[in-house]
Amino acid sequence: MSLLTSSKMSAAVSDLPSGPLDIYRSKASFNWKDMVHFIEGDDIIILKQKVFQTLENDPLFARCPGEDLPVERMRELAFLRVKQLFRYDLLPEDEFYANPFKYVILNDCLGMYDWGVSAKFFLNKGMFYNTIASTGSERHSNYLESINNMMIFGCFALTELSHGSNTRAMRTTATYDRNTQEFVINSPDFEAAKFWVGNLGKTATHAVVYAQLYTPDQVCHGLHSFIVPVRDPKTLLALPGVMVGDIGKKLGQNGLDNGFAMFHNVRIPRENLLNSTGDVTPEGHYVTPFKNPNKRFGASLGALSGGRVSITRMAAVNLNLALVIAIRFSATRRQFGPKDTEEIPVLEYQLQQWRLIPYLAAAYALENFTKSFYMNYVEFQIGLLQKDKSERQSELGREIHAMSCASKPLGSWTAQRGIQECREACGGHGYLAMNRLGDLRSDNDPNCTYEGDNNVLLQQTSTYLLSWLNHKQHKSGRIESPLHTVDFLNDFHQILETRFTASTKEECMDSCLWQPTNGWYVFCWTRATRGYSSKGARRASLKLATTVKCTTAAPCPWPTSS
Amino acid sequence: MSLLTSSKMSAAVSDLPSGPLDIYRSKASFNWKDMVHFIEGDDIIILKQKVFQTLENDPLFARCPGEDLPVERMRELAFLRVKQLFRYDLLPEDEFYANPFKYVILNDCLGMYDWGVSAKFFLNKGMFYNTIASTGSERHSNYLESINNMMIFGCFALTELSHGSNTRAMRTTATYDRNTQEFVINSPDFEAAKFWVGNLGKTATHAVVYAQLYTPDQVCHGLHSFIVPVRDPKTLLALPGVMVGDIGKKLGQNGLDNGFAMFHNVRIPRENLLNSTGDVTPEGHYVTPFKNPNKRFGASLGALSGGRVSITRMAAVNLNLALVIAIRFSATRRQFGPKDTEEIPVLEYQLQQWRLIPYLAAAYALENFTKSFYMNYVEFQIGLLQKDKSERQSELGREIHAMSCASKPLGSWTAQRGIQECREACGGHGYLAMNRLGDLRSDNDPNCTYEGDNNVLLQQTSTYLLSWLNHKQHKSGRIESPLHTVDFLNDFHQILETRFTASTKEECMDSCLWQPTNGWYVFCWTRATRGYSSKGARRASLKLATTVKCTTAAPCPWPTSS
Repeated sequence: MSLLTSSKMSAAVSDLPSGPLDIYRSKASFNWKDMVHFIEGDDIIILKQKVFQTLENDPLFARCPGEDLPVERMRELAFLRVKQLFRYDLLPEDEFYANPFKYVILNDCLGMYDWGVSAKFFLNKGMFYNTIASTGSERHSNYLESINNMMIFGCFALTELSHGSNTRAMRTTATYDRNTQEFVINSPDFEAAKFWVGNLGKTATHAVVYAQLYTPDQVCHGLHSFIVPVRDPKTLLALPGVMVGDIGKKLGQNGLDNGFAMFHNVRIPRENLLNSTGDVTPEGHYVTPFKNPNKRFGASLGALSGGRVSITRMAAVNLNLALVIAIRFSATRRQFGPKDTEEIPVLEYQLQQWRLIPYLAAAYALENFTKSFYMNYVEFQIGLLQKDKSERQSELGREIHAMSCASKPLGSWTAQRGIQECREACGGHGYLAMNRLGDLRSDNDPNCTYEGDNNVLLQQTSTYLLSWLNHKQHKSGRIESPLHTVDFLNDFHQILETRFTASTKEECMDSCLWQPTNGWYVFCWTRATRGYSSKGARRASLKLATTVKCTTAAPCPWPTSS
Repeated sequence: MSLLTSSKMSAAVSDLPSGPLDIYRSKASFNWKDMVHFIEGDDIIILKQKVFQTLENDPLFARCPGEDLPVERMRELAFLRVKQLFRYDLLPEDEFYANPFKYVILNDCLGMYDWGVSAKFFLNKGMFYNTIASTGSERHSNYLESINNMMIFGCFALTELSHGSNTRAMRTTATYDRNTQEFVINSPDFEAAKFWVGNLGKTATHAVVYAQLYTPDQVCHGLHSFIVPVRDPKTLLALPGVMVGDIGKKLGQNGLDNGFAMFHNVRIPRENLLNSTGDVTPEGHYVTPFKNPNKRFGASLGALSGGRVSITRMAAVNLNLALVIAIRFSATRRQFGPKDTEEIPVLEYQLQQWRLIPYLAAAYALENFTKSFYMNYVEFQIGLLQKDKSERQSELGREIHAMSCASKPLGSWTAQRGIQECREACGGHGYLAMNRLGDLRSDNDPNCTYEGDNNVLLQQTSTYLLSWLNHKQHKSGRIESPLHTVDFLNDFHQILETRFTASTKEECMDSCLWQPTNGWYVFCWTRATRGYSSKGARRASLKLATTVKCTTAAPCPWPTSS
């Protein structure tokens, strides 16, 4: 038996322990192990098993449901766990390049364990590292090496106490001093303190700091990013001129040490400017490959673009976790029933089904959508790396931006409401900390806020959609985006005139006759069931998620990307 | 100057400290102190000032926003604070009888401080005491005295691990032993353990335990309540046969020690049966004034009836607190704006107004509704005390039951969603523990669950409404309830046919032209703006809450109770 076969064999999924859920499990119309293989595939199953077994076998990751740890201890444990994760190197680089989706799965698994730990890990290894790699240059390679050797630990410092959404208005300054060839980093007042910075509270030794760049001629060249040492890597004590600390307890994700920092004329070498979008010569002259400062600004914030794609997925994972808890509970919790017989599982009540099952369907839709969307994003990133300057690449960027600005609200709000419904559907037991629904709700909450407040983000998507409508109405063009997510707008008149006509249960269950009632659910659903996955997969996921039978051969009235 | 006048003078409301909110405050179209006097009245203002000043001046009540206390310490502090509240006796009995609404205000104030403390206080002083007072008899008066002297500390033990909504199915037993004239209290297994009992976790010395009563002839007479000692009042150690403990950390209200208890053939004197609805003679014969066991059961659970009325109010208080935080923040937080000028307060954005102002209107409606509804409940309670057997009293009971089964969901869900919106509307700052929105959300959450799951309760209201429709359609009767809350159903055909026709801003702002779109909001709104308060108050509250100008003299198309 070859090693490969042996590795394949290990994708076998273990039986579940026998218990009160057996009754329902034995009633399933499909084999759940086939389902796992269908959704995940061997490779992903093996990775998940590796991650979970690694955590399960290491006492450092042991914990107790509902335990009451002080925030300080949570911060400390998360740091120790992140360091351990570095040592484990659960997703080596070559494995990532062979299947970039594994990056998502690693985040899923660590997040299922603890989003604070996951965020702490990826903020350093992903955000800090990638920002330096993508916006720095050859002269910053020593930092990348130090990150990989765990000699330094970093964070991404953009947001200030008084500025979040309005990124351009950040007020930290970096003034070039040509005498010493240094930048002087300064926070004018406390409202300009860097704030909310993940990892900065206790553990970061270095920060990528966004500041307004001033040349000696007093000209402001706008926001640029700089590598600023903040703590001694040996003692973790703050460096001179840096006032740095923890912003305190949050509603959730308390393993992550969000912090603040004020800089009092902190001097850093000229070379610490991440110079891919603009540089300052030793003599103090500003040079940039961008003629338009707006474009330069957009490019310098490019490092943020993947966040919303990830967050959509993270929210979906939270919804999955909550549903598993609530549905299992509902299958075993019995209450009321015919006189003199055993009480009935609450899952049998229409009310309980009405509360939970739509979220279960949403979970499957989001699972599939976030997978396909991430692969779209990877395609876009590959284009960036290949310096693809085509019209399609540019349109793909716009489309992914608009989609992520809607998918993050869709995912995070669906999870928010779904987890709340699960909490309430479990009654008092859902209110006990040990049953985790509170942590899931609290840990999911920032998904509604960071990388752009949901309500504000949706306006970006609206702008995108309106621009297409404008294109159609005033330029008589046909609406066709690279991923075809907006092509349905070509038929918007027809869609708006469509009415619900199903009069039988069978018609209601036929997805081809469904009426779109909420644009973005439709968007999500159609994305989730086409494109990335095959037609067979679409049909299967439809069937599995909602037991819809889609056997009609009649043309679908929905817009299709064909 | 007489004492009375001097006391009136003390209702003066202090100025607010000057700060960044001055800009908005100076723009108000009304005097906010007049508003406070209008809503509260002198008496209530004085009580509120007394409570808050008492807490502010006592270091035991000092705390720090966002502090990270272990659950054990929160439990301990809450107990110490409750004992202190007993000593303060902030609402002496005669003051309560002079104005029963002060009971609500005391709960409001303590809840605004900490719902865990408030619950702990009222579970003993209200629930435990009142259950004994109303369902016991002369032979239990020594317990009432001990409660008032703080010699014993009690709890109300109905819910079991496996039974919440289905109260009749509780499985704890109380078997009478005529040889010793004792009841033997027993928990058949862990699923029948008393669970979720507030105060039982660490501090209760006695419990009112609901158990199935068995006479020596093996006949079960259904659920009855018994006073069962559970802990030594001096040492707080569990008594023999009682396995009692804390159920652990909850999502919120962690000052309250919810507990579990299992009874292993614990013997209590025969007299510990609370005997107003049924008793057992020394010889072991069951006697009851009720012929129908269903009626007896209903009466024995009567002690629960005020809970939902209170909870509606508690939820409204939480909404108020969250809105104050979010609206003040929105008035001072500036983000974006015209180039080269100061940024604009986020409260000026339509989006932010759209998110928060409807909840502000709801807060005023709920404030008024919960006040009038409580007074309706007091009226009903007075009828009970006076042994009023009239048809009206009976109908009033049904109506208040149906209203409370809808008002609790309305209040708790409005607060749940409103607090969540406030949390999100404050962006990242809303996610910091010190800003309290997380605690408000977590502390409000059980309002959706205890005293009946919201979804389950609504079915009780539906049944009530359907019975009235049935009355109208099949018995050709007119629908008229004591509080007139359902009289609008007489016109349901007309209401269902009414369409939104307003075409100008003025028409939209005219409440007399508003179309009912959500039955229970209409119900709440109409309740909030009539009945308890005068027509003038109605108009004023309408104006203040939503700046509606209701000047039309045309007859209102809404059903009115005239």
